[in-house]
Amino acid sequence: MQRIKIVLQYDGSSFSGWQKQKKSRSIQEEIEKALFKLFGKETLVTGSSRTDAGVHALGQVCHFDCDEKFPVKNLCKAINAFLPDDIRVIKAYKVKVSFNARFDVIKKTYIYVLSNQNFNPIFRKYYTTIDYPLNESKMKDCMQLFLGKHNFKGFCSSSAQVKNFEREIFEAKLTKKFKCFVFEFTGNGFLQHMIRILVGTVVDVGRGKLTLEQVKECLRSYDRSLSGKTMPPNGLYLKKIFY
Amino acid sequence: MQRIKIVLQYDGSSFSGWQKQKKSRSIQEEIEKALFKLFGKETLVTGSSRTDAGVHALGQVCHFDCDEKFPVKNLCKAINAFLPDDIRVIKAYKVKVSFNARFDVIKKTYIYVLSNQNFNPIFRKYYTTIDYPLNESKMKDCMQLFLGKHNFKGFCSSSAQVKNFEREIFEAKLTKKFKCFVFEFTGNGFLQHMIRILVGTVVDVGRGKLTLEQVKECLRSYDRSLSGKTMPPNGLYLKKIFY
Repeated sequence: MQRIKIVLQYDGSSFSGWQKQKKSRSIQEEIEKALFKLFGKETLVTGSSRTDAGVHALGQVCHFDCDEKFPVKNLCKAINAFLPDDIRVIKAYKVKVSFNARFDVIKKTYIYVLSNQNFNPIFRKYYTTIDYPLNESKMKDCMQLFLGKHNFKGFCSSSAQVKNFEREIFEAKLTKKFKCFVFEFTGNGFLQHMIRILVGTVVDVGRGKLTLEQVKECLRSYDRSLSGKTMPPNGLYLKKIFY
Repeated sequence: MQRIKIVLQYDGSSFSGWQKQKKSRSIQEEIEKALFKLFGKETLVTGSSRTDAGVHALGQVCHFDCDEKFPVKNLCKAINAFLPDDIRVIKAYKVKVSFNARFDVIKKTYIYVLSNQNFNPIFRKYYTTIDYPLNESKMKDCMQLFLGKHNFKGFCSSSAQVKNFEREIFEAKLTKKFKCFVFEFTGNGFLQHMIRILVGTVVDVGRGKLTLEQVKECLRSYDRSLSGKTMPPNGLYLKKIFY
């Protein structure tokens, strides 16, 4: 038996999310189906992050176990041969059997892509469009407020099933690429919908609907009604997992 | 009665093509359905070009007639309100009643986008990927062979239902953008699958499977068996129509 770590890219548009669900298409299930075809036996995978429906991945990570006889150097190609074309394995490594893709995570990077130009029907699933003017400098100031350790209860879905809402954000950057705003967050973990609400809050600051003082108050009060709306999933990408 | 010319963008991924068909989703039909909802009566549209299934548009043009009482300045927004989100009207003009979107075309520009990097599951519907090395300089030389008036019978689908295979290509450029090859053709018209076969031929020259001499021979002999394969539709974009 050997433990394998794989790095994945996927287009989240046609999935109900990472996690297996009874009646809808999930990334986890597609990978387990591909591994079943390849290895001839049920092979469970453990992912680093449960991405939501419509959320994309540039570098999702998961692990599974398989027989030593399958050479690692051919695994990428072999698994891809059984995957649908909206998921691709880009790397495969042999790791220690103690490695756990979910629990060994040190930090994660997500990006959120937002266009401030006209709605584009061709790329509608790959970034979100907002048609009111945004103040870039104010948005950059807002991003800085999230740095460090905070209780992010005011910035996550009310249905988040966790006891500890404290997370640490190590980096929060706003850049422009191909005329889009790219919000990048690196942290030790993120609560349900947290990035989409952080971005919704930054956007509200950028359009003048919220002040930096109000955002600080939300960080202090843990009050979800004070933060911005949850942005749509289509602009969100799981970029990288660090172990 | 007034005649309206509209410019459209669409994601061709989920359509059987421009032209109305009995059992499948077409762009023409979606626009006619939207106009029916807006005007309350059947409104037929005439498009400049019949794009195939999977082919995108950055600037398709069509015309239709409607009552004078609908102000042109609100038409874009009004039509978009009834269109699915993979089609968008980006401009609407009032034109002479003699204007015909199909017959008044002077020239058309198409682009074909090709990646020579790894297959990307996120953008798989928006460019084609080829994983063997391509010689850019040879491909540029090949593009030049198509300039001018030629009988393109050797570069179109065998099911093309036309009598005259002569077309004139005014511009044929190969550039690189965001690490992709972008093939751009401007001509007075294109036969069925012609751009996709021209690009397939250029790619065969780029990989050393065809020589420039063989491409010239194909232009002289009108023999489809000498030209390259038909490239997939996902890399093709109708960029602009000139009147």
